[in-house]
Amino acid sequence: MKKTLALLALAAAAITTAAPAAAQFAKPEDAIKYRQSSFFVLGQHFSRIGAMANGKVPFDAKAAQENAELVAILAKLPAAGFGPGTDKGADTKAKPEVWTEQAKFKEHADKLLTETTKLAAAAKTGDVAQLKAAFGPAAQTCKACHDAFKNK
Amino acid sequence: MKKTLALLALAAAAITTAAPAAAQFAKPEDAIKYRQSSFFVLGQHFSRIGAMANGKVPFDAKAAQENAELVAILAKLPAAGFGPGTDKGADTKAKPEVWTEQAKFKEHADKLLTETTKLAAAAKTGDVAQLKAAFGPAAQTCKACHDAFKNK
Repeated sequence: MKKTLALLALAAAAITTAAPAAAQFAKPEDAIKYRQSSFFVLGQHFSRIGAMANGKVPFDAKAAQENAELVAILAKLPAAGFGPGTDKGADTKAKPEVWTEQAKFKEHADKLLTETTKLAAAAKTGDVAQLKAAFGPAAQTCKACHDAFKNK
Repeated sequence: MKKTLALLALAAAAITTAAPAAAQFAKPEDAIKYRQSSFFVLGQHFSRIGAMANGKVPFDAKAAQENAELVAILAKLPAAGFGPGTDKGADTKAKPEVWTEQAKFKEHADKLLTETTKLAAAAKTGDVAQLKAAFGPAAQTCKACHDAFKNK
């Protein structure tokens, strides 16, 4: 009986905790698809800036600015797709640590916002040197989070 | 010989036409994944506005405005993923008509931008009646394009 009550309490807590995610997404697989989709679109635009920052394609100030503005906007999206209960429900490379080490994960998520905001500001100057200087730390932010929280 | 030259000319034309898409995406499947991903994220935010417009969830002016601003930005993205040569390369529900009836497809794509811009303006007023009035035509724009250009 005690065990049943404890389980019920746990279940109730889980439902309450899951409410925000449930409110935003109809089901866990939608949340998973949402974070994967927004990361993919983000990555495409980020890599276009990278190609310019790394000299693989000629620097185009207007394209750099447009892509960086999009990156800063898109970077805000994926976090909402990592709500409670979204560790399964569809194929995902997210490690369990996303949910067991939430404070650390949030630090990484916040850093993504900081660095992509800086990148957008750098791109706005139209100065390729500033773009290059901001791109490195932003790319490193992606990598650090992938290393800690994403399976290969 | 004449036939070979004609084929070569056709091939050269195809390469030139495909250049913009090739410049943006490393391979056709990236373009396909890009358009599918951006449509999915767009759809998630659009449906949150729909839930409010249809009275399924309480109207929240701030949430409506944020979602509608995102929708207007995201609506600009998928078109780039329908470049020449992206009719295959990954699973896609896009009908061949996307590429054989480009003028008509562009009309639909332009209408999506017009209606989502109107939706964002309506959401900005904070008036649920205006949101409702703008949501219908925007939703109809999605449906009309799906009916004409998307397999079920």
